[in-house]
Amino acid sequence: MLNTFVLGSTKVKMSPQQTEPGAPRNAEWVETRRAALQRYVNRTAQHPVLRVDLDFINFLESDQELPRAVNTATLSGAGVMRLFNKVGETVNKITYKMDESDPWFDEKITEVENLDANLQKLHSALKSLVNTRKELSALTGLVAKSAAMLSTCEEHTGLSRALSNLADVEEKIELLRSEQANSDFFIMAEFVKDYIDLFSAVKSVFHERVKVFQNWQHAQLQLSKRRENRGRYELANRTDKLEQAQQEVEEWQTKVQRCQQQFDDISTEIKKEMERFELNRIREFKINTMKYIEDQMAHQQQIISYWETFIPSAREIV
Amino acid sequence: MLNTFVLGSTKVKMSPQQTEPGAPRNAEWVETRRAALQRYVNRTAQHPVLRVDLDFINFLESDQELPRAVNTATLSGAGVMRLFNKVGETVNKITYKMDESDPWFDEKITEVENLDANLQKLHSALKSLVNTRKELSALTGLVAKSAAMLSTCEEHTGLSRALSNLADVEEKIELLRSEQANSDFFIMAEFVKDYIDLFSAVKSVFHERVKVFQNWQHAQLQLSKRRENRGRYELANRTDKLEQAQQEVEEWQTKVQRCQQQFDDISTEIKKEMERFELNRIREFKINTMKYIEDQMAHQQQIISYWETFIPSAREIV
Repeated sequence: MLNTFVLGSTKVKMSPQQTEPGAPRNAEWVETRRAALQRYVNRTAQHPVLRVDLDFINFLESDQELPRAVNTATLSGAGVMRLFNKVGETVNKITYKMDESDPWFDEKITEVENLDANLQKLHSALKSLVNTRKELSALTGLVAKSAAMLSTCEEHTGLSRALSNLADVEEKIELLRSEQANSDFFIMAEFVKDYIDLFSAVKSVFHERVKVFQNWQHAQLQLSKRRENRGRYELANRTDKLEQAQQEVEEWQTKVQRCQQQFDDISTEIKKEMERFELNRIREFKINTMKYIEDQMAHQQQIISYWETFIPSAREIV
Repeated sequence: MLNTFVLGSTKVKMSPQQTEPGAPRNAEWVETRRAALQRYVNRTAQHPVLRVDLDFINFLESDQELPRAVNTATLSGAGVMRLFNKVGETVNKITYKMDESDPWFDEKITEVENLDANLQKLHSALKSLVNTRKELSALTGLVAKSAAMLSTCEEHTGLSRALSNLADVEEKIELLRSEQANSDFFIMAEFVKDYIDLFSAVKSVFHERVKVFQNWQHAQLQLSKRRENRGRYELANRTDKLEQAQQEVEEWQTKVQRCQQQFDDISTEIKKEMERFELNRIREFKINTMKYIEDQMAHQQQIISYWETFIPSAREIV
């Protein structure tokens, strides 16, 4: 179970959308990746089991250079893509349907799937917003440049100075709009994306439980068969086969018990883990939203102060 | 001269960019046209000669329905386009070059052409800015919608309420961004466009002066020829032709005087008119800039207040 959770998080790290194989690894890509890895490490450090994991502690405390990731380096980008697509297909093919004895799981998986679908819509809207903000920033720069050029051929001193100051203001706003785009991207879009990836990990965990359930069902079926065998030998009085048949029944009884235990364990563990996950999700959403509001208000305030500095030269035009 | 100025302004009213023949005349088009006509009427009302023109006063004070513009209505959009393109070609073909005795005109036309070229660049940058702001407004609406949908399937009460409030805030910001786009459009882009059109009218007026100059030159040439004729008749002692020749010389002398007077008048009138135009231009730029700054600051302040109302529900998530 923990392994799956960790595996899920590893998928977050490696997800093809983030590595975008074939695309040039520019400064923006590096910064996005750096921020994503930082969030990943932070989340791992907050997990009660993972935070005390020796490998994790060694990784954090090591002052040696990290070993080169030989396997990923030799795998081509397209190869990694194929690999993940394959994993994705397999997961998608397996249905979550099972004779569910605990309604909590049915409700939870429906909830997770709804949230996931809506988060994906929100993420796509946020991504477009980020791109358009970047475009707006570039166009503000173009307005700044045009105003600066106009100021050089304006003969009226007051108007020329005002145009030049307008160009300065628009240039500052250009930079600020670029910061706003970053704020939308790193605080909101990437945060939502993390949760899309985490929900995908959650789905894998639910799927893992279905597999454990299927093992248990299989063991029960085998136990029934072994019991039938034993019954047949008893009726036929085949004492020579009976001991072997009894042994097999006991073997499968143990297996059924172990599988049931595993199923109970994973069910309990998932509930516990989901509770922690949900608390974190709400807490993280709150922190990010507060940070986003602060950023938004600070940016607007900054723009106001830029315009304020422009007022005197506008008043002094004539 | 005044006719040309008025004609120039009429061209502002009728310019093909504004009517966009073939395009559907939607509410946005009507509003743009309404605002442009209002600015046109205001500018006309500020002109010392035009404001006392009887036709203009009748137009303003009439409480009867305006006659239908039969000619423009029967002319197809494409026809109007062709008409203006033709006028434009003719104007472009005629050079402003002439033996300029007054350096003021050379300097002024260079200044006007520089300003015009740079205003066109600024206008094109502003138009892109307006479009991108509109796009940003629509995308903000999409984020609002996604947040609202997410809130309906969020089981956590605090987070669900916060998402719903976030949707409200983003919806208000969507409207505000649309207002910002309008502010960019009506206060800046359309204002700059008016001046591009007015500079085109100014160029026509300068061109009118070149035509008057050419008439004067032509009259002087004719006068020289008539004097030569008279000289030839005097030498040949052709008294029978002399009276007629003398009459022609006097005729052209009058014409030369009239043309020179016309040229002096138009030159003086242009300088006077340009002074008024320049003063208005600076004054209007100041008024518009102040209005723009006010709008910008009010919009940012409004966005801050929207985010402020969101803080409590973000704080109350957990």
